[in-house]
Amino acid sequence: MMFKFERELVVEWGDCDPAGIVYNPRFLAYFDTSTGLLLAAATGMPKPQMIKTYDIIGIPIVKASQTFSAPARYYDAVVIRSEVTKVGRASFDIRHRLFKDEALCVEGEETRVWTARDPETGKLGSRPLPDEVSARLRGEG
Amino acid sequence: MMFKFERELVVEWGDCDPAGIVYNPRFLAYFDTSTGLLLAAATGMPKPQMIKTYDIIGIPIVKASQTFSAPARYYDAVVIRSEVTKVGRASFDIRHRLFKDEALCVEGEETRVWTARDPETGKLGSRPLPDEVSARLRGEG
Amino acid sequence: MMFKFERELVVEWGDCDPAGIVYNPRFLAYFDTSTGLLLAAATGMPKPQMIKTYDIIGIPIVKASQTFSAPARYYDAVVIRSEVTKVGRASFDIRHRLFKDEALCVEGEETRVWTARDPETGKLGSRPLPDEVSARLRGEG
Amino acid sequence: MMFKFERELVVEWGDCDPAGIVYNPRFLAYFDTSTGLLLAAATGMPKPQMIKTYDIIGIPIVKASQTFSAPARYYDAVVIRSEVTKVGRASFDIRHRLFKDEALCVEGEETRVWTARDPETGKLGSRPLPDEVSARLRGEG
Repeated sequence: MMFKFERELVVEWGDCDPAGIVYNPRFLAYFDTSTGLLLAAATGMPKPQMIKTYDIIGIPIVKASQTFSAPARYYDAVVIRSEVTKVGRASFDIRHRLFKDEALCVEGEETRVWTARDPETGKLGSRPLPDEVSARLRGEG
Repeated sequence: MMFKFERELVVEWGDCDPAGIVYNPRFLAYFDTSTGLLLAAATGMPKPQMIKTYDIIGIPIVKASQTFSAPARYYDAVVIRSEVTKVGRASFDIRHRLFKDEALCVEGEETRVWTARDPETGKLGSRPLPDEVSARLRGEG
Repeated sequence: MMFKFERELVVEWGDCDPAGIVYNPRFLAYFDTSTGLLLAAATGMPKPQMIKTYDIIGIPIVKASQTFSAPARYYDAVVIRSEVTKVGRASFDIRHRLFKDEALCVEGEETRVWTARDPETGKLGSRPLPDEVSARLRGEG
Repeated sequence: MMFKFERELVVEWGDCDPAGIVYNPRFLAYFDTSTGLLLAAATGMPKPQMIKTYDIIGIPIVKASQTFSAPARYYDAVVIRSEVTKVGRASFDIRHRLFKDEALCVEGEETRVWTARDPETGKLGSRPLPDEVSARLRGEG
């Protein structure tokens, strides 16, 4: 079973807009934080350490999409459930779902690419995922 | 020809993350601001005035997607070109493209729904776009 | 003893800037969230409920100051200790201190004013703090 | 006469909170951006280039204070007037004032320190401002 990560958070005043609801881009920040915590939980390494250990520049998102079904408001306690949905050769997909009282508010998907800089040309490009990272994301090992 | 809106901006320090590039969710904030300015330019009314005039609660995004092709960095001067791509009965689509030196960095699409509160039940729901708003978004009138 | 509130948080990627450290304005957002949680803990009411209950428009900050002694970085676990330092007739002061491994990184002070709208003139102005709110902030009752 | 920098901006939806006014920490982001633009205008170098040219790690804020007199709202056109108020040996002060229709809304002051890393010990510390930078901040040269 693919790796999963769940966390709770309380919506902050500064996350909300004049309509009194979470400002859309903040949901992406929530999801980005969840991905960071999921990766740290899966590999045992927070992002800066992964970057050093594997000599990558990061794992940037190349594609993302979201569906917004219901708003969240200040002081709402929400749950974000994140799971790896696909592990490719050099990329992986994560799906995030944010719930309030078990009702789905926002669903987001993202594709991230394992990215390094060519030491000779300086160009950025994708690299194969290290085997142990792939295995962990797949929920193995 | 559908309504278009273009603006330039200079990437701010606080928009960028420890990788030195614009933090993904900030692109969505850029696009949200562009949509607000596009609507104000198309209808002659900033969002709060539209909300009052048409007795809606807003025009929330229900679906969005993004493709990230190249990063943007602090102090980069970028151009965001936004255009209405579809005008439906109660919703419309906008496409945003962010360019740096004419190279596409990020493309985003969003569907927004004209939304009001039922005065009797209090429930939120979609409403038909007012004719003059539809016409303006289509680039007519 | 004046009311105190403490919370832990883990610094997020999106809180940090290209220097790899927390972007200054984010510390103020941390402190604002701490004040909201302190008030909810002291009075038993989250901000929106206080606003309704007491017919105020909010408790805006009129003055604030900060001292930055040491940076915080992505994934740092920090503690924010907040305490009421003064309760006036219509305002109160809060001091926040953010620690990393018991070393002080940032200290912030703020003065907030209990603010309502005059129903006749529409003008905003300060109002005396309700007795039970004052008492709670002072750590009594 | 000390160096001055002025810019206009239109308040964004995402800068505002559920009270419909600019969320306090966003003013600090506005001011930080103004300082970056002031420095670029004064020295002819954006921050990343200053960092490289002078081998510093940055010019962090060590002290800041703000006074909030009036709110700003979505779509308000505001002016931020920034000026150097003091140039010390290794630090300088900047004052920012944000106006709406010539009425002062927010005033902020900050002290920034020219900071480098000791190549031997790795420790961060202040360094004397380069003469040409001091001169430019003083409005000379």
